[in-house]
Amino acid sequence: MEVALVGITGYAGMVLYQLLQNHPNVTKIHIYDHNLNEPTELNTILPIFHDDHTEVLPYEDSDIVNDNQVAFFATPAGVTSKIASDYIEANFPVIDLSGDMRLNQSDYEHWYHKPAASQRDLDQAQYGLAEFELASGHSYIANPGCYATATLLGLAPLIQQHLIELNSIIVDAKSGTSGAGKALSPLTHFTQVNDNLQIYKPNTHQHIPEIVNELQSWDINVSAIQFMTTLIPITRGIMATIYAKAKPGVDGIMIDKAFSQTYNDKPFVHFLGEALPDIKQVVGTNNCDIGAIYNPATNTVTIDSVIDNLLKGAAGQAIQNFNQLFDYPESSGLNLQTFLP
Amino acid sequence: MEVALVGITGYAGMVLYQLLQNHPNVTKIHIYDHNLNEPTELNTILPIFHDDHTEVLPYEDSDIVNDNQVAFFATPAGVTSKIASDYIEANFPVIDLSGDMRLNQSDYEHWYHKPAASQRDLDQAQYGLAEFELASGHSYIANPGCYATATLLGLAPLIQQHLIELNSIIVDAKSGTSGAGKALSPLTHFTQVNDNLQIYKPNTHQHIPEIVNELQSWDINVSAIQFMTTLIPITRGIMATIYAKAKPGVDGIMIDKAFSQTYNDKPFVHFLGEALPDIKQVVGTNNCDIGAIYNPATNTVTIDSVIDNLLKGAAGQAIQNFNQLFDYPESSGLNLQTFLP
Amino acid sequence: MEVALVGITGYAGMVLYQLLQNHPNVTKIHIYDHNLNEPTELNTILPIFHDDHTEVLPYEDSDIVNDNQVAFFATPAGVTSKIASDYIEANFPVIDLSGDMRLNQSDYEHWYHKPAASQRDLDQAQYGLAEFELASGHSYIANPGCYATATLLGLAPLIQQHLIELNSIIVDAKSGTSGAGKALSPLTHFTQVNDNLQIYKPNTHQHIPEIVNELQSWDINVSAIQFMTTLIPITRGIMATIYAKAKPGVDGIMIDKAFSQTYNDKPFVHFLGEALPDIKQVVGTNNCDIGAIYNPATNTVTIDSVIDNLLKGAAGQAIQNFNQLFDYPESSGLNLQTFLP
Amino acid sequence: MEVALVGITGYAGMVLYQLLQNHPNVTKIHIYDHNLNEPTELNTILPIFHDDHTEVLPYEDSDIVNDNQVAFFATPAGVTSKIASDYIEANFPVIDLSGDMRLNQSDYEHWYHKPAASQRDLDQAQYGLAEFELASGHSYIANPGCYATATLLGLAPLIQQHLIELNSIIVDAKSGTSGAGKALSPLTHFTQVNDNLQIYKPNTHQHIPEIVNELQSWDINVSAIQFMTTLIPITRGIMATIYAKAKPGVDGIMIDKAFSQTYNDKPFVHFLGEALPDIKQVVGTNNCDIGAIYNPATNTVTIDSVIDNLLKGAAGQAIQNFNQLFDYPESSGLNLQTFLP
Repeated sequence: MEVALVGITGYAGMVLYQLLQNHPNVTKIHIYDHNLNEPTELNTILPIFHDDHTEVLPYEDSDIVNDNQVAFFATPAGVTSKIASDYIEANFPVIDLSGDMRLNQSDYEHWYHKPAASQRDLDQAQYGLAEFELASGHSYIANPGCYATATLLGLAPLIQQHLIELNSIIVDAKSGTSGAGKALSPLTHFTQVNDNLQIYKPNTHQHIPEIVNELQSWDINVSAIQFMTTLIPITRGIMATIYAKAKPGVDGIMIDKAFSQTYNDKPFVHFLGEALPDIKQVVGTNNCDIGAIYNPATNTVTIDSVIDNLLKGAAGQAIQNFNQLFDYPESSGLNLQTFLP
Repeated sequence: MEVALVGITGYAGMVLYQLLQNHPNVTKIHIYDHNLNEPTELNTILPIFHDDHTEVLPYEDSDIVNDNQVAFFATPAGVTSKIASDYIEANFPVIDLSGDMRLNQSDYEHWYHKPAASQRDLDQAQYGLAEFELASGHSYIANPGCYATATLLGLAPLIQQHLIELNSIIVDAKSGTSGAGKALSPLTHFTQVNDNLQIYKPNTHQHIPEIVNELQSWDINVSAIQFMTTLIPITRGIMATIYAKAKPGVDGIMIDKAFSQTYNDKPFVHFLGEALPDIKQVVGTNNCDIGAIYNPATNTVTIDSVIDNLLKGAAGQAIQNFNQLFDYPESSGLNLQTFLP
Repeated sequence: MEVALVGITGYAGMVLYQLLQNHPNVTKIHIYDHNLNEPTELNTILPIFHDDHTEVLPYEDSDIVNDNQVAFFATPAGVTSKIASDYIEANFPVIDLSGDMRLNQSDYEHWYHKPAASQRDLDQAQYGLAEFELASGHSYIANPGCYATATLLGLAPLIQQHLIELNSIIVDAKSGTSGAGKALSPLTHFTQVNDNLQIYKPNTHQHIPEIVNELQSWDINVSAIQFMTTLIPITRGIMATIYAKAKPGVDGIMIDKAFSQTYNDKPFVHFLGEALPDIKQVVGTNNCDIGAIYNPATNTVTIDSVIDNLLKGAAGQAIQNFNQLFDYPESSGLNLQTFLP
Repeated sequence: MEVALVGITGYAGMVLYQLLQNHPNVTKIHIYDHNLNEPTELNTILPIFHDDHTEVLPYEDSDIVNDNQVAFFATPAGVTSKIASDYIEANFPVIDLSGDMRLNQSDYEHWYHKPAASQRDLDQAQYGLAEFELASGHSYIANPGCYATATLLGLAPLIQQHLIELNSIIVDAKSGTSGAGKALSPLTHFTQVNDNLQIYKPNTHQHIPEIVNELQSWDINVSAIQFMTTLIPITRGIMATIYAKAKPGVDGIMIDKAFSQTYNDKPFVHFLGEALPDIKQVVGTNNCDIGAIYNPATNTVTIDSVIDNLLKGAAGQAIQNFNQLFDYPESSGLNLQTFLP
């Protein structure tokens, strides 16, 4: 299969390109870029790929739909909102790693501060949390955000099985700097990040509405979650530490059982019981490792959910969605190993 | 004044020694060590002090009470529990940085897994959270733990003024590795800490009962708090991110006012309103910087309280207690500057 | 092919196990450990491999020679010196990642401070710098050290083509902490490594004689090199910065040509001209990237040679030697991608 | 004494401000900025100084010469080259932390790629390497660069006493990111610096001519040095590792004696013999710690010279020069302690 990759200069695009190169069903990768005027060799644009002379093509002059069977977009916010309709109307399969097609119009404009796609197009996009949303029925997949993935997988059994008080959910999420992307900013200057922790976007992170939407699809009574993001001095990885009050009658055994049942047949989600995972054990893989501890003294369950933000939180999950869309085995191209030590 | 410093090889002891050297009322520092058999020059024990030939004396052979006017203990858990009574009976002033004299007998044995001091001695020790407990009345000061200090200062206005639901308190505390001390451990091996986050001692950290005790002294209805600790890849600093539900009728303005009033006249605690502090802005100082944001969507207040764990969380607060004990100005020896950049 | 892996708890052993799992010609991996008394599941020994129930076997009770076609040793110094003769006498192929069989007796005892193997056995071992020593003729391969690999690949064209003054070679080598292994030590305590640089083993690093030996095989006139090692606050990677005076008549163009010719047909060594590589561009791969700049003002050539110490500097090069030994394609099992970003 | 500080937003300016606040002879600090149009409170410009309401004044409208007795310039390259003449003509004492007045015209324009000050003004400026150049005779002090300070103090005894072959000097210098300043750049983006080493400005660093000039003042036969700079993932500190061939007849004892004699009476330079210093032992202080090892096998002496780049390499040395200029005790305002641990 020939695939289109639109946008490779960002971190998610680079990692997605590496995954696609190893996917057994991908025969050719056409790379496109919105900022090019003429075809340019990849190693000119990104010297790190020094042996790779693949031509990157200008997006504007290309016929992606005719030259490929699927398109991956690894573009920044504000790009696919303008062009998604071309693919939706053509009924052409797309896996969109950006946040543009995950929310409804008013939420998008409120949280992203940009013009949204048309509501008609947004209705056609399917949110692609791979463990819970089968990609087969729709062709435009809105690949989830990194924080949203870690948080939703950590909350799913609790919400779906109605084990926690819905108004008690607190998510204290920590991320490495690769989640903030390649753009220079004082927030991600080495001297500022090193030896430091910084809370950013308090109560305003754009993944909040995406999380709430998906939770509501599991339990309509969810109304809001408390969600804070802290930048930590590492490159790769997210830890979402989630706290919630157990409902009356719920205890640690029931919580344990709910996670075990939910993720029993999910190859990329590992429930570890009370062994709370660290970040490094998933970096380099498409795994989400989850631990849970119930504290009877406070009637609180603590969930520790960790992912590699660029894999399970971006490019890896995109491959999962790709596999679902084309009925490939779920782990095709995703037999990755933890980056040890 | 001549002062005794017992224990200098740990991080808190080294930093306390540096502070004492700069204190205007300290004329001589006698250093003692439990592991020495004969007097030994400091720079032999700790080459980092390469110009300092001060003799460190064996604890056992010394007459601390007669040779000094006050003693600081920067010893590990399990040391002062055995010897505190010598000083209490002599009515000799002590500032004890260890956790040995902060809890009652049963709590100590439960959380520290060591034999406790006698309850009579424990009753004589005063918990020394410097902003709220005046050191004048007692002479054996149990200097607070680092996590406890950041958490208690972040919660004090909310508890004292009854602004939050007591059963809703969640503390997600993050610490650099200096808090784990100098002892080698897989947890603090560079290869394990770097590029990683690790939750440790979930629901079992020994600072939990210390925090609950002090909260109960402010509001007897406090029963338990949810408190988790995460090790982050930095050396110095703690961030305690605290979440709680506001009581009915409480809003952001009331919370802001409570913090402003409480800390208005406290030179080391800075309330910054909604500007949530990062860790670096306090490292090198005795400050506790605090920000607070109320989120109406979840009725939750988030407190961000940061300290330098070795200063405000250990040696710096010990100097504050020393100043109180001897009626020196509160900032004597503590005019420290943020370690920039 | 069924292969033996002796020693998996160290970093090189873990990474080698990951590589062997992906090698197309390896059908089964038998793992052995000297410290076991009975078969034990891998995930009990190393929880990071949480899905892997492979039985690790006690070394003593096993018949490695009959159950396998080759053995990899990822054991610490002092192990294979005692047992190499068993394999040499059986003419059984071994790839030994330890330093035990790289030197002659007197050098080994001088630099490793341990008893050496017999000189007869040492004579049978072949030094396995994969780009220059074909593994076909011998069956006991002494896989090179990490510093030695980066240094030798950086010096090879200059020495082999007699372009530099032999007594002018200075190697300033920097390594991440994974090179120092898993054993706890004050040198690798996070608090000591973070925000720091430490020179260690000045003029006494055990890779020095290994480097000199190999250089002498290229030019018998080499007598000694100046070689210093600095520990840097990263986990993976080595940079060897090498300085030498050019011989009369040698200039930058000749140096460039020597590197280009030497490595033209070597898939894992990339000569980048004056573009000096950083460490991250090779981490995760078996590559050695090399840049060279000639400075006419000082008549000095500076070589910047970078590798991933656990791959090209250990487990990756072991796979290269394995491929040579069994006539597999050179890159089998080594199509690795840079760990981006 | 009232002092002017021109430029406070850079790292050196911030640190210099902190030092001046603690200097016993400074009664008032007037702060000036070239980018202001009207007086602005310091904590508005730099929120880190949250309690400090000092008015920062526009440079253009101010009468620095009349309102102060000395001026410190902590401005970027290209500023004082344009205005130094104002102060030189007024015979007003200046301590200039920028590189503008350290070189002659042609060197400045070659290495800085900017227009130089007039040669007449440059002739009036005195290079202020505090241990060797007494500031008393001149009033315009060109405070040395950070790399230059570490390198020159490491080489001084060897050059002044003619112990090494002049054409054999190699300097492999490593610096944390604070040396690269506050300006955002891909080189100092956290994701790029973390887990990485990067050589930058090979053979082109602007401190090279400054070092050579000063070496020539000690031995006119010095012609060039090989000098390379590597960016390391730390914030504060420089390590200059220096290699040179000993002259015939020179051995380790003579080298040791030369360093001991030279620095015997210099309070900020500590010669440690063969104990090679790490970076952390000087961070937070104005010290330069130096170790030296002679290797008879290669006839090479290795010098390890470490400083805090913002203190001894910038603001601290500026205070040393200030003390010399006004005959204050050498350590006034510089009784700093190592930032432990």
